[in-house]
Amino acid sequence: MQVLHMNKGNGDTSYAKNSTVQSKIISVGKPIMKEAVLEMLCNNVIESMGIADLGCSSGPNSLSVISEIMDTVEAANRLLGRRLVSEFRVFLNDLYSNDFNNIFMSLPAFYDRLKEEKGLEFESCFILGAPGSFYGRLFPTNSLHFVHSSSSLHWLSQVPAGLESNALKRLNKGKLYISKSSPQSVVDAYLLQFRNDFSLFIKSRSRELVAGGRMVLSFMGRSSTDPTTENSCYQWELLAQAIMSLAREGRIEEEKLDSFNAPYYAPCAEEIKDEIQKEGSFTIDRLEAFEIDWDGGAVTDTHTPHGKLSVGRRVAKAIRAVVESMLESHFGIEPDVMDDLFIRYGDIVGTHLSKSRTNYINLVMALTKKW
Amino acid sequence: MQVLHMNKGNGDTSYAKNSTVQSKIISVGKPIMKEAVLEMLCNNVIESMGIADLGCSSGPNSLSVISEIMDTVEAANRLLGRRLVSEFRVFLNDLYSNDFNNIFMSLPAFYDRLKEEKGLEFESCFILGAPGSFYGRLFPTNSLHFVHSSSSLHWLSQVPAGLESNALKRLNKGKLYISKSSPQSVVDAYLLQFRNDFSLFIKSRSRELVAGGRMVLSFMGRSSTDPTTENSCYQWELLAQAIMSLAREGRIEEEKLDSFNAPYYAPCAEEIKDEIQKEGSFTIDRLEAFEIDWDGGAVTDTHTPHGKLSVGRRVAKAIRAVVESMLESHFGIEPDVMDDLFIRYGDIVGTHLSKSRTNYINLVMALTKKW
Repeated sequence: MQVLHMNKGNGDTSYAKNSTVQSKIISVGKPIMKEAVLEMLCNNVIESMGIADLGCSSGPNSLSVISEIMDTVEAANRLLGRRLVSEFRVFLNDLYSNDFNNIFMSLPAFYDRLKEEKGLEFESCFILGAPGSFYGRLFPTNSLHFVHSSSSLHWLSQVPAGLESNALKRLNKGKLYISKSSPQSVVDAYLLQFRNDFSLFIKSRSRELVAGGRMVLSFMGRSSTDPTTENSCYQWELLAQAIMSLAREGRIEEEKLDSFNAPYYAPCAEEIKDEIQKEGSFTIDRLEAFEIDWDGGAVTDTHTPHGKLSVGRRVAKAIRAVVESMLESHFGIEPDVMDDLFIRYGDIVGTHLSKSRTNYINLVMALTKKW
Repeated sequence: MQVLHMNKGNGDTSYAKNSTVQSKIISVGKPIMKEAVLEMLCNNVIESMGIADLGCSSGPNSLSVISEIMDTVEAANRLLGRRLVSEFRVFLNDLYSNDFNNIFMSLPAFYDRLKEEKGLEFESCFILGAPGSFYGRLFPTNSLHFVHSSSSLHWLSQVPAGLESNALKRLNKGKLYISKSSPQSVVDAYLLQFRNDFSLFIKSRSRELVAGGRMVLSFMGRSSTDPTTENSCYQWELLAQAIMSLAREGRIEEEKLDSFNAPYYAPCAEEIKDEIQKEGSFTIDRLEAFEIDWDGGAVTDTHTPHGKLSVGRRVAKAIRAVVESMLESHFGIEPDVMDDLFIRYGDIVGTHLSKSRTNYINLVMALTKKW
């Protein structure tokens, strides 16, 4: 929690410049999000609408979700011929170390566009930063109407208990996440951590949302119940290969690889449903799985050597923007080794994608807080 | 508004490392702040208390005010033997370009300390960032109970009309602010801009505060009605001298000095009362003036050459941390010229202080929103 943050700023390795996959994921979930907002507006009287985007990150994606929600409210206003919401309270959440400065600098232009495109009805929109972990309370009781979170809930609150870097036994040697070769104890530790974290998330939001409030969540998952299935962990498998190749040359300590396990979990639908039903205050309106290309669906011919290389590099840059802060903190890698690591990773990914088509599975769900 | 921000980060020229004067000002206003909070708690039933610190900046001062408010609530709890507030919503406001990242990184330690020192009763404290100009609406209607602002309201929303850098006539040549030699039109332009800004501030807060809510404001002012009085403008007079000395050497364009006027105003009590009474929704409970040493009251012997130099340098660093972003944007000065400018300024200030004792005048006022 203290370490994870997307790469800051606007540079070549920044998250702001390398978040097309996450943008693709947002657009895939858009129809479900719009439906949830519309249904809520039809069934509730809302004076001051509280909206939270959890894990907003920084860069172009941070405000695009808010834009979409405003568009939906505007469309509903037109449809019903009256002003449905007189005031918006918008909360942008991410961990304390997120680059909020970057988001805040883009707010004046965002407010200007809002007024210009949507008129005075949208003048009472107050956008606030709400730093902290969503695995716990973030907002006052009954203060929110709509919660959105995209590409964030696959991050656990911590490395699963027993797999931490200071654990006595190295249970998952040479791997960064669950792998075909991982012992059952590793799989169990990951599932337990996910259950604890996700149930705390649901419980916290249940307190913060008003009855009838909606929540649309979208994050990495898997379509099979088998946690070692390729589309839930192969990006980590290949990253471990790249680290191992540098370890063999003595440029990274192999022990460091053995002692690292990513605070990440890609659950299946059943694991999610279990926790929501156990908590009991939400109904599940939708839960759908989408296949997402590793490079966000850019059109590239992966059959030429050049195409293969370029798609691999793009995937590597996208993953670097997300995991670099964690790797830096654990491995203590020098910048030039970090550069080399992701060049190798890009090559490995490119080679893999030219042979087999591996996708991410993105799960999108819409929930309603019961009355 | 787009330009002004305190120097970022934690380096030698950062605001975080050079804000003892502002810290001194906060501590001078503390008794008035505590009194206002206590009175409000005694006269109102508050479930969820909305607190805003306007112009919170970054660095150690940002959270010290919030700490003080929490201390006061805790003292009131003990005094009355019951829990007066069950939830705190704390809003930290500053302009979009403020270093919010720096504040947010210090929140985990702040929350830990709060729980440790004050116990579970203070667990429901939600600290949010509210970026934007306080010359306009920042918060929902009737959402706040206590507003605090220190060392911020002397900054105008813009350079006074007619004195902008693109104005046809240079009305205030060789000066940065109102000076003994400034024509009446300059004085008038500054007063008009202050009136417009301050009345908009009061009007905006009046909408946001609940009836019975309190506001404690503290900012630079003057004790005399004469706007050219030394304690309201001499720090600018000396900075203009330092710029002029670099202009004479051709290292800064003199035209740039002629075309710059600081978006700053140090009002007298009467000018403030006028605007509050015109707006009509606040009663003035207190309005007091305090003398503040230019270096925040550090004990230094200004009569030795070394002491003189060191106090001058400290004052220069404190002012640099506040005005550098503005000077950089207007003058386009290279870093080495900027360094030289503030070395000269330090010498000029040191020499001045060894001959005469010039203080800032800080005005502190407590207001109550009428029922």
